[in-house]
Amino acid sequence: MWAVSILIQHALHDLKQRTLRLGGLVEQALEKSIEALRHRDADLAASVLQGDEEIDRLEVELEEECLKLLALHQPVAVDLRFVVAIIKLTNDLERIGDLASDIAERAAALSGQPPMPLAPPLADMPDLVRGLLRQGLDALVNLDAELAQKTCAEDDRVDELHRATFEHVMARMAESPEAIPRLVQQLSVSRYLERIADHVTNIAEDVIYLVEGRIVRHEVNERGSASRCEAEPERPA
Amino acid sequence: MWAVSILIQHALHDLKQRTLRLGGLVEQALEKSIEALRHRDADLAASVLQGDEEIDRLEVELEEECLKLLALHQPVAVDLRFVVAIIKLTNDLERIGDLASDIAERAAALSGQPPMPLAPPLADMPDLVRGLLRQGLDALVNLDAELAQKTCAEDDRVDELHRATFEHVMARMAESPEAIPRLVQQLSVSRYLERIADHVTNIAEDVIYLVEGRIVRHEVNERGSASRCEAEPERPA
Repeated sequence: MWAVSILIQHALHDLKQRTLRLGGLVEQALEKSIEALRHRDADLAASVLQGDEEIDRLEVELEEECLKLLALHQPVAVDLRFVVAIIKLTNDLERIGDLASDIAERAAALSGQPPMPLAPPLADMPDLVRGLLRQGLDALVNLDAELAQKTCAEDDRVDELHRATFEHVMARMAESPEAIPRLVQQLSVSRYLERIADHVTNIAEDVIYLVEGRIVRHEVNERGSASRCEAEPERPA
Repeated sequence: MWAVSILIQHALHDLKQRTLRLGGLVEQALEKSIEALRHRDADLAASVLQGDEEIDRLEVELEEECLKLLALHQPVAVDLRFVVAIIKLTNDLERIGDLASDIAERAAALSGQPPMPLAPPLADMPDLVRGLLRQGLDALVNLDAELAQKTCAEDDRVDELHRATFEHVMARMAESPEAIPRLVQQLSVSRYLERIADHVTNIAEDVIYLVEGRIVRHEVNERGSASRCEAEPERPA
């Protein structure tokens, strides 16, 4: 029994390490895509797209490891929750990687058009979203439900900035029709960042579920709206 | 052993029934949101938003059932794959429900603005996406990998229409600045439909995985691009 327990703990530890490696790659992809956007760097953008294959490969491997672990060790209670949470988490991490690629594609497209500053609310989003991802991964490493709860709550700020970007872009489009294509690209970047923050919220919810054993998504909050962690505001775009 | 096998088969059957019930609700939500968009019906749109709570509740219940089943019956081989596929599937179904709500919100907003026909490629998307969802759910009910593969392939057509909608909307924006807000709403609807089709592709991939035991997402296809089932085209917005 003791030997079995050591085996399963070893397998779970290995799973966690691989998940963190995937998280690290995804974080790098997001950083590079933001750099590419800020510095109009099409080569850097291209390297994000190339790196996405490694992320996809790791995700598939991780899922196979989870299934093997379930079949071989038949974990129960907290260990079972851990494996199921990893299956869901890796899916979110892979989607964040895809969205980083989407941002890189927009960055490459914008780098071929005349320079235009980012809409002010959009300019504030990348660092906020990157910080949220870092925090979500830290919450996962340390199984820190409090930090995960904080991460969920901070998603609201990203939603606000996305809404403000939307309004800014709509106003500018009416004034400067020649800038419409670039403004639409900026709006896409804003939406990708907002969706990344949503996936980080999913990860944070999985951490809370892991630690506390309760499913927090869709919980009705004090303001009466069914929501993820905190209220999910209406999305403008 | 025989009694255990009957118990687990019974539990798996129950899981499948609940998943189909969730699928039916999600399908209804999509149909209503499309009706609301076509007939500028804000009341119908509101009923989609109300119905989303039931979808969320069912998803959480289903996931709890899956965990209970894993812990109690410790399924292996094809049964284990089935439960893990359901965990992932329900997440996609719930997201489709959210996107139907997003479409309903756009429908409600557009119903308060002067009427404007849908961009021609967008007008073709709802029936196509609804058909894909139906097909994906049929593939799941009948564990039909061939139908699932067909569903994946047909996602390309949705991507094409989304791209065409994007180009149509961009051209119209430059011509008619006063129509920009409504055009942006239409572009959002197009993107939501395209994302619904992506989630249907995920479901179809899970069905293939269930039946054939191979993970098809990110497989490198003949054209050399890493992809979901078939080539995933660049998304314009």
